[in-house]
Amino acid sequence: MNFLLETIQVLLLSIWYNVESFIHLFIPIKKKNIAGEVVLISGSGSGIGRLMAQEFAALGTVLVLWDINQEGMKETARLAKQSGASRVHYYLCDCSDKNEVYRVADQVKREVGDVSILVNNAGIVTGKKFMDAPDSLIEKTVEVNTMAHFWTYKAFLPAMIANNHGHLVSIASSAGLIGVNGLADYCASKFAAVGFAESVGLELVATGKDGVKTTIVCPYFINTGMFDGCQTKSSPPAPASPAVLPWQYHFLSPKPFNSKHSLSMCPLHTINSPKCCGYVLQAPVTVHLPLPVYQY
Amino acid sequence: MNFLLETIQVLLLSIWYNVESFIHLFIPIKKKNIAGEVVLISGSGSGIGRLMAQEFAALGTVLVLWDINQEGMKETARLAKQSGASRVHYYLCDCSDKNEVYRVADQVKREVGDVSILVNNAGIVTGKKFMDAPDSLIEKTVEVNTMAHFWTYKAFLPAMIANNHGHLVSIASSAGLIGVNGLADYCASKFAAVGFAESVGLELVATGKDGVKTTIVCPYFINTGMFDGCQTKSSPPAPASPAVLPWQYHFLSPKPFNSKHSLSMCPLHTINSPKCCGYVLQAPVTVHLPLPVYQY
Repeated sequence: MNFLLETIQVLLLSIWYNVESFIHLFIPIKKKNIAGEVVLISGSGSGIGRLMAQEFAALGTVLVLWDINQEGMKETARLAKQSGASRVHYYLCDCSDKNEVYRVADQVKREVGDVSILVNNAGIVTGKKFMDAPDSLIEKTVEVNTMAHFWTYKAFLPAMIANNHGHLVSIASSAGLIGVNGLADYCASKFAAVGFAESVGLELVATGKDGVKTTIVCPYFINTGMFDGCQTKSSPPAPASPAVLPWQYHFLSPKPFNSKHSLSMCPLHTINSPKCCGYVLQAPVTVHLPLPVYQY
Repeated sequence: MNFLLETIQVLLLSIWYNVESFIHLFIPIKKKNIAGEVVLISGSGSGIGRLMAQEFAALGTVLVLWDINQEGMKETARLAKQSGASRVHYYLCDCSDKNEVYRVADQVKREVGDVSILVNNAGIVTGKKFMDAPDSLIEKTVEVNTMAHFWTYKAFLPAMIANNHGHLVSIASSAGLIGVNGLADYCASKFAAVGFAESVGLELVATGKDGVKTTIVCPYFINTGMFDGCQTKSSPPAPASPAVLPWQYHFLSPKPFNSKHSLSMCPLHTINSPKCCGYVLQAPVTVHLPLPVYQY
């Protein structure tokens, strides 16, 4: 096919995928059955991690919780059981430490079995102007928000590839799509998380392992405590307003796609507060997980 | 201004900035005079770094070369002098080592003076499927391609901020905009470089330091040796073809912009071979540097 035809194909597919995404705002896609799957959620001691644990619990999954906050995890486990979980396992794990990630991952494999849905959710934020951010915090941000994803993939992806079955979920951020004033190290780490998950997703497709799905979630500011003090244009007064404004998100274009798979963006269901809004950036091969963020 | 008006404003400005970029394909923007500026180029012992050194040399700048390859730097220095450079300084520096970056940066400040144009160009690539890439190489890729940018900013940005004068140039990659099969760690590191430079650029604008400019360059595969063996759809046969295809780049939309500053993309002048093509992603505040990649 020559260049002109390919160009037209890309344009038409781009329009089609946008229309398709728009239609799915009103007609939700059928969700897959995940009963019996082993779901690992890092950073599940609070915030989005806890909420996802509750959602997954109600769907008959085996839950594996990771956090550095033991008390938070216990509370999440209690809530998950309340939501109907039969089996909930929790492990202290500092995701900034590669060796600890590998060690705890091995423990999980021995004690629970292979993880089939990996939710890389643990994240930290420095919340300082770049020149004011201590090097140690910048390094930790990259270690938790980016590099932990490398090591959890290394630990759990081989079994998914062997079974050609699994789901890699990356809880990234809108700050992984657009630079934000005052969040330079956070943006770097979240951009990296997006690029990484997207690339491995393509690698899986290219090697025929299309049973292993990838979903990249890019939420907007959420009042889980992590962004306390952050304000945006829509919430005046805005003394520490990020340079990226809420309404700009409405104009994020879908990223280019390869011919068979669409990258589309869909509004999120508000998670836990009226302040929460955002988008899901769907990676090339998406099957709709019953994440709270997918309830559109 | 209400939401609807802002939406219309964004759409109209988006169209305008695209038209403006298109016009500048044919009517180049006036380049700024950089005679006398102190230009530091990391990774200047070969490839794009060397070519930029030669270009900068011809424009009356003071050159500071960094590389881990002493012989390569000597050759670059020789070529730069041939191109008209009056002063060329070179330093061995392993950008994967934060302490070495800080140590050599201090040496540069003592021996040459404040750097006013910082070109973060040093980069490495693992070039393996993610599961086959050794952890040590993955870590080094992030250290060189992303974290070295943090430390060079920490070292040289304060003087630029104090003088409200300078230019931060990030030689990122098209793989910093779209995930690529077989380059997962590289993509992560280059996405991070893009997000980081974009965020600090916005931070500088937000704090009124608009004399410090940011330019993010996202080239496509270039035959500098770094991507030997990589082939694309346009160069059949393609045994190791990346999932991202050349023609897709033509449809990369400009990223959303804040109301005053455009993020636009412009085709690059081919650098050193007919195989080279790509785009420059211009960060919010762009002044056109006389980089070879800017000769459009």
